[in-house]
Amino acid sequence: MTKVREIDLRSDTVTQPDEPMRLAMSRADVGDDVLDRDPTMRALEDRAAELLGVDAALWVPSATMGNLVALMIHLRRGDRFIAPRGAHVLDDELGAPAWLAGGMPEAVDWGDWPGRMPVESVRQAARSGPYYTLRTTLLCLENTHNAAGGTVTPPDEHAKLVANARDVGLRVHLDGARLWNASVALSVPPAALTVGVDTVQVCLSKGLGAPMGGLVGGTPSFVDEARRVRKMLGGGVRQGGIVAAAGLVALDRIQDVAKDHTNATKLAAGLKNLGWEVDEPETNIVLASTPDIDATLTGLRRVGVLGLPIGRSVRFTLHRDIRPKDINEVLSRVAKLHS
Amino acid sequence: MTKVREIDLRSDTVTQPDEPMRLAMSRADVGDDVLDRDPTMRALEDRAAELLGVDAALWVPSATMGNLVALMIHLRRGDRFIAPRGAHVLDDELGAPAWLAGGMPEAVDWGDWPGRMPVESVRQAARSGPYYTLRTTLLCLENTHNAAGGTVTPPDEHAKLVANARDVGLRVHLDGARLWNASVALSVPPAALTVGVDTVQVCLSKGLGAPMGGLVGGTPSFVDEARRVRKMLGGGVRQGGIVAAAGLVALDRIQDVAKDHTNATKLAAGLKNLGWEVDEPETNIVLASTPDIDATLTGLRRVGVLGLPIGRSVRFTLHRDIRPKDINEVLSRVAKLHS
Amino acid sequence: MTKVREIDLRSDTVTQPDEPMRLAMSRADVGDDVLDRDPTMRALEDRAAELLGVDAALWVPSATMGNLVALMIHLRRGDRFIAPRGAHVLDDELGAPAWLAGGMPEAVDWGDWPGRMPVESVRQAARSGPYYTLRTTLLCLENTHNAAGGTVTPPDEHAKLVANARDVGLRVHLDGARLWNASVALSVPPAALTVGVDTVQVCLSKGLGAPMGGLVGGTPSFVDEARRVRKMLGGGVRQGGIVAAAGLVALDRIQDVAKDHTNATKLAAGLKNLGWEVDEPETNIVLASTPDIDATLTGLRRVGVLGLPIGRSVRFTLHRDIRPKDINEVLSRVAKLHS
Amino acid sequence: MTKVREIDLRSDTVTQPDEPMRLAMSRADVGDDVLDRDPTMRALEDRAAELLGVDAALWVPSATMGNLVALMIHLRRGDRFIAPRGAHVLDDELGAPAWLAGGMPEAVDWGDWPGRMPVESVRQAARSGPYYTLRTTLLCLENTHNAAGGTVTPPDEHAKLVANARDVGLRVHLDGARLWNASVALSVPPAALTVGVDTVQVCLSKGLGAPMGGLVGGTPSFVDEARRVRKMLGGGVRQGGIVAAAGLVALDRIQDVAKDHTNATKLAAGLKNLGWEVDEPETNIVLASTPDIDATLTGLRRVGVLGLPIGRSVRFTLHRDIRPKDINEVLSRVAKLHS
Repeated sequence: MTKVREIDLRSDTVTQPDEPMRLAMSRADVGDDVLDRDPTMRALEDRAAELLGVDAALWVPSATMGNLVALMIHLRRGDRFIAPRGAHVLDDELGAPAWLAGGMPEAVDWGDWPGRMPVESVRQAARSGPYYTLRTTLLCLENTHNAAGGTVTPPDEHAKLVANARDVGLRVHLDGARLWNASVALSVPPAALTVGVDTVQVCLSKGLGAPMGGLVGGTPSFVDEARRVRKMLGGGVRQGGIVAAAGLVALDRIQDVAKDHTNATKLAAGLKNLGWEVDEPETNIVLASTPDIDATLTGLRRVGVLGLPIGRSVRFTLHRDIRPKDINEVLSRVAKLHS
Repeated sequence: MTKVREIDLRSDTVTQPDEPMRLAMSRADVGDDVLDRDPTMRALEDRAAELLGVDAALWVPSATMGNLVALMIHLRRGDRFIAPRGAHVLDDELGAPAWLAGGMPEAVDWGDWPGRMPVESVRQAARSGPYYTLRTTLLCLENTHNAAGGTVTPPDEHAKLVANARDVGLRVHLDGARLWNASVALSVPPAALTVGVDTVQVCLSKGLGAPMGGLVGGTPSFVDEARRVRKMLGGGVRQGGIVAAAGLVALDRIQDVAKDHTNATKLAAGLKNLGWEVDEPETNIVLASTPDIDATLTGLRRVGVLGLPIGRSVRFTLHRDIRPKDINEVLSRVAKLHS
Repeated sequence: MTKVREIDLRSDTVTQPDEPMRLAMSRADVGDDVLDRDPTMRALEDRAAELLGVDAALWVPSATMGNLVALMIHLRRGDRFIAPRGAHVLDDELGAPAWLAGGMPEAVDWGDWPGRMPVESVRQAARSGPYYTLRTTLLCLENTHNAAGGTVTPPDEHAKLVANARDVGLRVHLDGARLWNASVALSVPPAALTVGVDTVQVCLSKGLGAPMGGLVGGTPSFVDEARRVRKMLGGGVRQGGIVAAAGLVALDRIQDVAKDHTNATKLAAGLKNLGWEVDEPETNIVLASTPDIDATLTGLRRVGVLGLPIGRSVRFTLHRDIRPKDINEVLSRVAKLHS
Repeated sequence: MTKVREIDLRSDTVTQPDEPMRLAMSRADVGDDVLDRDPTMRALEDRAAELLGVDAALWVPSATMGNLVALMIHLRRGDRFIAPRGAHVLDDELGAPAWLAGGMPEAVDWGDWPGRMPVESVRQAARSGPYYTLRTTLLCLENTHNAAGGTVTPPDEHAKLVANARDVGLRVHLDGARLWNASVALSVPPAALTVGVDTVQVCLSKGLGAPMGGLVGGTPSFVDEARRVRKMLGGGVRQGGIVAAAGLVALDRIQDVAKDHTNATKLAAGLKNLGWEVDEPETNIVLASTPDIDATLTGLRRVGVLGLPIGRSVRFTLHRDIRPKDINEVLSRVAKLHS
């Protein structure tokens, strides 16, 4: 019996660096970034800052560290922060926002649109009171919103949330691990989606295909302190230019994620045809709910299709290593499950 | 203009120690509790442990410290704990569960009964996954549930929650700051409401009228570690027998809270007659919702009636310093607001 | 065989509240300090602030909490703080300065005088460097210095340390748990020993004989934040006026500790006569070194004299429940050990 | 005026990946290490574990994170840990051992040999006491000891320290960021220097020349938990095989550091000839004390020689990018400073 080739749709983090990216890494100009700063890391940071419309940015080994550094700087001990239900900072960072950053999380229910908070909820969450009451000081946004199925928040909705947060005294951090997808889906530059935020984190190791790393950006004084906090956490590296070089290549490829969105739409349509209950994808993520999630995942694995469970749904994530014909193959394999 | 006597219904924490309690304090036999243990504190701890049906108990200066000590011992860094929406450990402890105990809180929505979680929600919250996912390890109960309006969880409901929590691998801490009220309202001994828990906290400074202090109980090894953690937090005191003596008097008066329940029922009925929207009180707390909470509180203050805001409601808390005729007075003053 | 009456010289924390103090407690005017502030607590705080020469003060259940609150407010995450070797904040607070306040402690060796740091060491410790180096931000003083044998730092030495700390950018916290003893030994008011500090902590439950509690003082904004932090730690109490009343009595008795100093001198002389190696006491603590500390403590316990081990020495602490004739009795019992 | 070529002796972290290393990186077989483990990372981890004589190892982005992960797992909240004065975990990790791992550090003075602790000091530091006293639970070793000038602890001394630590109930973590240098200097395999430890950390980005990364090793269950903690800290990366490939090359080059040791000896001798006060180097670090450290560093910088200040000394660190003739050049430049 021959083993079928697995088609891995668990996450866009599974993407492999391709030849041009590997070549760039092998030729990268590097230095000791802890002592002097590494020229390639610096170039990547400068370019990312410009793309994101912030004054400065800092390379971090992972999106999780980018969020963690930002939360550690924003939150005083015990401060409450709010984020849309299902946000990565709430559910996928192993409690670091609490025990490392010292913050009390509060999930805000989505409004009419999956992944988006009603403005009114933001205002209410920022309730204040006497000295013995919790202070809410930070709003965390996530665009696209992973657990909601890669949903986007367009610039006007973003601006409203930020303006209301500011109005009630909150700072704003944007988890933009998949901001590139939102930017391409909305046909707006990434900076249009960071307007008014204090800090933003982006990931290079998801749809853009770099092997590792991300960036966290904000004011120069934020980045100065972030550099210090990154060192504390053990995220200060020496010749990081090797991987930063891959990041520079990745930033040239933002538009490529459009292909993943097309593939997602095609996959969703195909699954619907097969009788699945599927959300209309807005970017590169397809959420398909299923009565028995465990049986579904087992079946999929048997036919060589890998997805990830999110609550009662299977998440299929499209990425640059998936070609259009792979979608046909996935659908044909899934069809077999039903026959 | 004469100032009207204020009727303070903000909280049962405003109760004053009466003469017998003061006398007991003035005669208390005391020792250095950090070095040797104080005999009166020890007597109080033993008696509370027996009442609560646990093996051992430890005096703490406040209910908040009782919860904090328990959470610090139960939670490993980053563990998620769940509690019913509005719980004291979620909303009223200034984030200490996160930045001191290192836990990620998750509010569980109430089911059909205010303040009570559906068993299914407990089971779902205790989801587990690969190594990179949050661990949920602790269920926090609260009986009576303050923010829900002093609602009680009866022994059978309690037992079901605990059994299910155990079944999915959770430990259980009970915030019983007002467990006495639940016990009296249900006509069951306090120990009937702690069945199966790992730890329980009770407060002496609310309905029972002691000036300060509470207890946290569990196994002897829990109490050994709790004594250590209490010292770290600065809660280790020397001749605490003075205030523990008040606690012993307080424990003789558990049945007295029945009067507060009667007063609460009377107040609720009166407010309804005046057109207020009022929940049926189960214990000593009356929650009355109002279209304009700020205006209502201002009006009340003007006529010398003090309540506390909880969300969009006014909380009136009955306590041992409020006599039945005070309820008539409150209602007559409130009536003036409407005339 | 009759059991001899134990003479307890382990600590001045073993002091019992006397009748006038008990009477004051039983008559104390109290309120809900979390909601409104308690009048007796407020009176104690005001009087302590005046005595200490600071703008404001806050009652805390223990000296340990007073130090902890101050460190939590002074230290940003990871800041280094320095203190004289053997300081209470280094050795006797169960690591709370690290895991709760987030600070890295560094012990500074004493100079020519036990318990006092050379000015030069303070300057050197406050070394600064690039972004990736530890920040030292706080000097903790301790007067009298417990582990050094209750040694005092006089006003001029204190002033020099503070001036140098300021000069190199450090804040200053004074652990004055036994500041009363220093004040009386030096015949200067307590405020003469707090000149220039940011914050000071004093204890009421040691030589002054109150059953529990202390105070932490500083600027009004420090005290505002300290009140919040105290609540987080579970140190917010309701009718704390009961024990605060004992604190007011205690503050009337500061001069009484002179008797303890006299007793300490007498005890030290007597022990020397018996051949012990004893430091000359400066206040109420006698440190007697002994070749075999365990054997010595066992022997002492057998004859009904209790001391505490500090390193290789026995600490005898004189306090208000020890009369001059008790010293004779101690010496006569110790003499038996040698016969 | 032509700018002289800088000779950078600040640290062995400034080493640049060479062509073979770059080639290995460009060809690395990679996977998603968070989801599946990356094959090259796994190979590196297996090989390092074998070299170090431990059961399992985990890649970390930096030596600092390796230490931090180990401390976070070893230390319960508030535990004291001891390390030789000047250790990296004490002075060079920005307080993370305290505010992230929750430990109270204590520096142990060196004995007769710079960087080595007397066995008796280890035994004394592990003092235990009643429940209200600090627990010391961990000994941190550092081999070679950086701040002492790259001094080595030979296997027999190491074994004695570990045996005594065990005997008094301590766990043992070895900071082996420069263990390779100790191994080569002593002509023993690395595993001979890890005997009996619970955990060990090694760095690939110092003398071995990899661009980034290190490993932390111990039991399989330690590594399981370390993987989780690494993810929390943001050190979980996806296709880390790129940089792990450089690590595999680095491990082939351990013997190359012998050249750095020879260069260090030559540099030290030359500086002595020029009248400097220089410690005899044991590995690749030369510590040269100087009456005016700031003037010396400025002078050196003027002639294009870079060193780092450590206390009152200049640290010159030899590394693979320094050739023997560079030493002649350094000495000739330094000679000019004196002329």
